[in-house]
Amino acid sequence: MLDVTINLPERTMTVKAAAGENLLQVLRTAGVKLDTPCNGNGTCGKCRVKLDGGRVEKRHRGRREEVSGGELLACTSYVTEPLVVTIPRETLLAGGSISLERDSSAFEGRYYSVKKAFEALHGKESHVQAAVLKLVEPTLDDNLSDVDRLLRHLRVDLGCGEAVISLDLARKLPHVLRENDFQVAVVYSRLPDGRVRLLDVKAPEAHPGYGVAVDVGTTSVAACLVDLATEKVLAEGSCANAQSRYGADVINRIIFATKGDGLQLLQDAVVKESINPLIKELCLHCGIAGDEIVLFSVAANTVMTHLLLGIWPDFLRKEPYIPALTATENIAVTAAEIGLCINKNAPVLLAPSVASYVGGDITAGVAAAFLRETEQNSILIDLGTNGEIVLGNSEFAMTCACSAGPAFEGGEISCGMRAAAGAIEGVVLDDTYTAHLKVIGGRKPAGICGSGLIDLVAELKRTGLIDARGRFRKDIKTDKVVYDAYSVGRYIVAAKEQYDIPADIYLTEIDIDNFVRAKAAVYSATCVLLSSLGLDFDDLAEIKVAGGIGNHINLTNAVRIGLFPDINPDKFTFIGNSSLTGSYLSLVNKKATDFLKETAQQMTYLELSVYPGYMDEFVSASFIPHTDRTRFPSAAARS
Amino acid sequence: MLDVTINLPERTMTVKAAAGENLLQVLRTAGVKLDTPCNGNGTCGKCRVKLDGGRVEKRHRGRREEVSGGELLACTSYVTEPLVVTIPRETLLAGGSISLERDSSAFEGRYYSVKKAFEALHGKESHVQAAVLKLVEPTLDDNLSDVDRLLRHLRVDLGCGEAVISLDLARKLPHVLRENDFQVAVVYSRLPDGRVRLLDVKAPEAHPGYGVAVDVGTTSVAACLVDLATEKVLAEGSCANAQSRYGADVINRIIFATKGDGLQLLQDAVVKESINPLIKELCLHCGIAGDEIVLFSVAANTVMTHLLLGIWPDFLRKEPYIPALTATENIAVTAAEIGLCINKNAPVLLAPSVASYVGGDITAGVAAAFLRETEQNSILIDLGTNGEIVLGNSEFAMTCACSAGPAFEGGEISCGMRAAAGAIEGVVLDDTYTAHLKVIGGRKPAGICGSGLIDLVAELKRTGLIDARGRFRKDIKTDKVVYDAYSVGRYIVAAKEQYDIPADIYLTEIDIDNFVRAKAAVYSATCVLLSSLGLDFDDLAEIKVAGGIGNHINLTNAVRIGLFPDINPDKFTFIGNSSLTGSYLSLVNKKATDFLKETAQQMTYLELSVYPGYMDEFVSASFIPHTDRTRFPSAAARS
Repeated sequence: MLDVTINLPERTMTVKAAAGENLLQVLRTAGVKLDTPCNGNGTCGKCRVKLDGGRVEKRHRGRREEVSGGELLACTSYVTEPLVVTIPRETLLAGGSISLERDSSAFEGRYYSVKKAFEALHGKESHVQAAVLKLVEPTLDDNLSDVDRLLRHLRVDLGCGEAVISLDLARKLPHVLRENDFQVAVVYSRLPDGRVRLLDVKAPEAHPGYGVAVDVGTTSVAACLVDLATEKVLAEGSCANAQSRYGADVINRIIFATKGDGLQLLQDAVVKESINPLIKELCLHCGIAGDEIVLFSVAANTVMTHLLLGIWPDFLRKEPYIPALTATENIAVTAAEIGLCINKNAPVLLAPSVASYVGGDITAGVAAAFLRETEQNSILIDLGTNGEIVLGNSEFAMTCACSAGPAFEGGEISCGMRAAAGAIEGVVLDDTYTAHLKVIGGRKPAGICGSGLIDLVAELKRTGLIDARGRFRKDIKTDKVVYDAYSVGRYIVAAKEQYDIPADIYLTEIDIDNFVRAKAAVYSATCVLLSSLGLDFDDLAEIKVAGGIGNHINLTNAVRIGLFPDINPDKFTFIGNSSLTGSYLSLVNKKATDFLKETAQQMTYLELSVYPGYMDEFVSASFIPHTDRTRFPSAAARS
Repeated sequence: MLDVTINLPERTMTVKAAAGENLLQVLRTAGVKLDTPCNGNGTCGKCRVKLDGGRVEKRHRGRREEVSGGELLACTSYVTEPLVVTIPRETLLAGGSISLERDSSAFEGRYYSVKKAFEALHGKESHVQAAVLKLVEPTLDDNLSDVDRLLRHLRVDLGCGEAVISLDLARKLPHVLRENDFQVAVVYSRLPDGRVRLLDVKAPEAHPGYGVAVDVGTTSVAACLVDLATEKVLAEGSCANAQSRYGADVINRIIFATKGDGLQLLQDAVVKESINPLIKELCLHCGIAGDEIVLFSVAANTVMTHLLLGIWPDFLRKEPYIPALTATENIAVTAAEIGLCINKNAPVLLAPSVASYVGGDITAGVAAAFLRETEQNSILIDLGTNGEIVLGNSEFAMTCACSAGPAFEGGEISCGMRAAAGAIEGVVLDDTYTAHLKVIGGRKPAGICGSGLIDLVAELKRTGLIDARGRFRKDIKTDKVVYDAYSVGRYIVAAKEQYDIPADIYLTEIDIDNFVRAKAAVYSATCVLLSSLGLDFDDLAEIKVAGGIGNHINLTNAVRIGLFPDINPDKFTFIGNSSLTGSYLSLVNKKATDFLKETAQQMTYLELSVYPGYMDEFVSASFIPHTDRTRFPSAAARS
């Protein structure tokens, strides 16, 4: 075994490695969490480390490496002798950082107005009820057990009929009854068969309980903590999905899940490293104990749902693409079963999936977008790592999904990042090809998020720096574009000297490729979905755009690059994280939970991979804006 | 901190102890498992260790210590300087040893004849059904989820109506379906509300499953492994209840449970150290995997049931003596929730309790004893650590419980042991006061079990060596009785020279006291139960005696010492471990499970501690045979 000394920003450690062992694997075994969206395939170039002692054997795979200054990619390096390796801070997974939304004024538009509109259309019913019971105290002559006594009062006082209680609650009951002189608050929900399930028993003055609604995205996790009595959102937050280090997209996650204890690692990553820390942060912010959270609602794509539940996902990617479950079935999951740090008995409401690649995030999104309540055709486009599109009206709904990759969320982009503080969210190029930046939080730029990428690619194209294929035009001379040893061009968005930042922020031709493939996947999927029904973009009354791409998408630029169709701009609405909003609706209103189930069962799924003409559409859309320029007249008019 | 070196039979270790720390505590912390039925109260004299270095401080408590030859009791010793302690093998808890019943011919009488008689009287219904389903294989056009597909076939092919499936089974389903080309065996049970709960999905040719019936006694645990297809007992075994080291009787267990993490330690002891090893041994013997066990039935007294479920038991011993649950309620417990090493989904059938000190072992026993099926009055006496008595006929059943202590199972007796190989199960004294022994397995004697104690005390009394108070008569000169420094007499049952055994086997006056208190508790409770209904022993058609006291009770001697009433011997039947037999009935027949519940609900409980006259009865019965000799005319005639 060979010694590998690892210098981390805060500490140094030495571990043992076998000769020939992959360096990324050595680091992972040592518990060093790197940001590796390509999961060690040698393609994303994110696992850079600095070699300060010894030499490694390089085995090149995937794309050409862009490393310099003594740095190398851990994933293509193999240990042959003792090493000293330094891990730069930017190589470490930043996913642990949780952003809390502190501006609760935004909650009105994001949650309450949607909730009110939904209630007006579909009615209202709570999942969770609470009541205070004064039990008859036991005596030698009336020596019913505690459980029996409580159930008797539920029947007599509340007319609950048959009620079920968990062992866990039975364990707690004797104490709660006696600490409160047999006067207690019961929190319960009604099962589909009409029986009552006790969720909690507590002091009579205690708050009836809280709920958490979550959106588990492939790249990001977002959640809100809800007071179930008032249905108000007390706090909202988001963080990276810690599964990202095992692969950037659902396909890489599935592949990882099927190797060794990969499935367990992925479930642990999303539950223990993402959802639970996020919930704890929300609880801390509001002064609430995890045990007081008695209801959990989650919307996620089908792969994320499988991984959250610890279910083998491999059959999702193999024809005929069958999920183990879609959550429309009669399966009751409780918080304890998936390791959530909330009340063990809390029911888990799973937003139901339609198919392998159209998940609960989309059924939740359809509810939040009110797609099924109008007679006119509308479309919902969810710009996630898994791009999902729904076309529908009050009569029908049809959906498809495409693999956009993580580019919209800054993944697999050299200097990409999530839409968080420091992200470049808007770009304008002047006549000297110099970029003028809009940075989230007004700070020094740290990277580029999705909306910034839309602007940047549109501006590079508008100014003629790149051609329709996304290649830099060598006939234009500017010091803003430089070429590496392999003649791959890169545009310097923010020079380190100019902004006093550790390194240049740039965009390479490979990044542009990744981004163009993402936008092409979404645009072509939208076209195919429409044409499969003999429709055109002009037949649409509304286009609702959802996703974590950033809050300030420049619509003109999005059309100019060919992401969205060139139609009346007034038809577009940006509705933000519709999956989280739908998850919230399901949490506070059982009618919404039922509506999601009904939606999933009624939605038709179009499998793009077997649809004739989809590949042609995709190839045509892999240009900026498109091979068919007549589809984008306004872009042509301006450029 | 002071070094304490511990010499064990197989190894030596050194641990740290604080000055003034109790030596028993030091040993427990070090993981040394001692047999301490009195839980360190200084009364049982079982925690003998040999001091090979250093001195301890002695703090006497409880009874006078009987230690010699450099030995001392760990529980009354305190560390004041570095020590070297040697633990004799006999001081170590022998509970780990599991005895398997290899004589399956006994199963006919113990299980099958009882099962047939029960079925003839009450009918028959299985808890678990199995069927083979050939599922339609999924295609791109028929892409129902695996769970949905299975539930559809359950509805259509088996008419199951609404079925529920656990997350755990959903995790397994995709693999099982594809490994078996979508033809699988389903194992399911019907919930009280008529819905079907899936228990297992497996290869079509796989055995439908097995069940385990258990009796958890305060001192011993017994179990049988059952083939659910044939309902035959494949193997039977027993072991000590590992909780014994924390206290010999239910009161000591409750007290221990309420201190620190005592409850968890007790639950772990019975599940991880007693039941699970026993099940593993049974599985190993039969070549069956734990996962194939899909049903679990347990009969135990109320305190044992609480501890098995991890429920705080303290309110059981405080007026008004209220159980947290009696298992008559609507509470569904699965194997995983209590940590059993069988199929996670396996339902746990809990024999229901009547009251704090009349448990499921008694409702199970009533079923196995057919007490409620006859018009004549009969009585069931269960000679356990917790002595339980039921009086009843087809019209009513009344029950009470008394604390007999572990003497019937050899506990709190200097040379006592369970009825296992090496136990003296029968004794006759000749004219020279020499004991002639009957030893289980025909081996060298190792100790005395319950039936041996009955004989021994009866013979000591018959030969006049002891008086009615259980004291040795000093006017009789014999070298078989010796006195210690405190003038406490002991009778040498088996001298070490005579039998070539490591130490004498003897019975002290203190042992006789303990045993007489046990028999007095049972006899007086039986009397009070009868007189509370204005009945006499002569009104009884049958007396059924159950318990782990040994298979060969000498009825004449049991009457002679005043344990059983002096009535027509033909009225007595010894039915062995009726709790285990009842647990087996419940496992194989849902009608029996229902019968137990009905029995628990209909049984009237008599709380002895508040019954006037009980203490007088107990005091009168604390003589051999009784203060009122007219009650035992045959004993008087013979002696």
